[in-house]
Amino acid sequence: MPYVNIKITREGASREQKAELIKGVTDLLVKVLDKNPASTFVVIDEVELEDWGIGGLPVEEYRTQNKR
Amino acid sequence: MPYVNIKITREGASREQKAELIKGVTDLLVKVLDKNPASTFVVIDEVELEDWGIGGLPVEEYRTQNKR
Amino acid sequence: MPYVNIKITREGASREQKAELIKGVTDLLVKVLDKNPASTFVVIDEVELEDWGIGGLPVEEYRTQNKR
Amino acid sequence: MPYVNIKITREGASREQKAELIKGVTDLLVKVLDKNPASTFVVIDEVELEDWGIGGLPVEEYRTQNKR
Amino acid sequence: MPYVNIKITREGASREQKAELIKGVTDLLVKVLDKNPASTFVVIDEVELEDWGIGGLPVEEYRTQNKR
Amino acid sequence: MPYVNIKITREGASREQKAELIKGVTDLLVKVLDKNPASTFVVIDEVELEDWGIGGLPVEEYRTQNKR
Repeated sequence: MPYVNIKITREGASREQKAELIKGVTDLLVKVLDKNPASTFVVIDEVELEDWGIGGLPVEEYRTQNKR
Repeated sequence: MPYVNIKITREGASREQKAELIKGVTDLLVKVLDKNPASTFVVIDEVELEDWGIGGLPVEEYRTQNKR
Repeated sequence: MPYVNIKITREGASREQKAELIKGVTDLLVKVLDKNPASTFVVIDEVELEDWGIGGLPVEEYRTQNKR
Repeated sequence: MPYVNIKITREGASREQKAELIKGVTDLLVKVLDKNPASTFVVIDEVELEDWGIGGLPVEEYRTQNKR
Repeated sequence: MPYVNIKITREGASREQKAELIKGVTDLLVKVLDKNPASTFVVIDEVELEDWGIGGLPVEEYRTQNKR
Repeated sequence: MPYVNIKITREGASREQKAELIKGVTDLLVKVLDKNPASTFVVIDEVELEDWGIGGLPVEEYRTQNKR
């Protein structure tokens, strides 16, 4: 029954890495809460960098500012 | 006031089918809970197959595995 | 595979009405997109009135203002 | 700690306007709830017009109908 | 048309503070994107502290650890 | 930067189990995508059984039906 939504910035996550996230999260829910994998959904949303803000800034500006 | 979010895998849902989903969900909320259609939002998210996991696998692999 | 999230204000929706929403949305997805009911999730979130805003106001104030 | 998700129809919001939304929402949470900007996420989702329904219709049809 | 979801930890936000968030976010969307307040939803979710994780820890533990 | 939302049915998940989910998901994102734990949010939503539907039925009825 679990539904897991993973939002990450779009920065080149590969098909294999996404599959690894899907497997890892599902295995975790089986181990911790004994959930049924066949009714466990994992949905990954990739978000453009300009659409993600932290510290009041779009991510890229935040990272640039925090490198100084 | 209702806000309904429908997440489906991106597998060719047409403009007409989406309009049918929007109408159907709104009519249902009017019938069951007497909601006002003018303040009922329905948002459809289409998710790439590699971004949707079930059974610990990306959907396409899960379907292949379950065909055997 | 669909995941549907229905957010409504907490205003006394009964167990039966929620079951009707779950059935209605699932039937709609079967009819329109030929989805498998056994892998269709519907999750209902009831939101307190003070936590839902429209027109820049909490719902109850909005309704009072729009009755005048 | 806040996580804010802003869903808008895809109608040409510029990079600068999105940055303004990110800054405005973050400043608001600092002012009202004294939240830490460095752990405040703002994620903007732009939704295609055909994927957003109101009044039982896709947005464009709803707007056309309500102009008459 | 915007739908804004604000998730915050449940730490005593008052009715007035929530109304201020609703008004502030709506005004921001009017100012930046010229959105119609009457079709702008703002939904606030308060999350229990044990249900919010950062740095791999529930918030309270994270805060304790980061005070040292 | 990741934001992960885990929705589960409210069936007695303990504080420790939730902490285990938070740690496990965060460790997974560090391992697979080299994400920074300090800017990784995990939010757990527990959903009442009557508010979660599968197979067109509320969960409890679905489980009863599938035991026969």
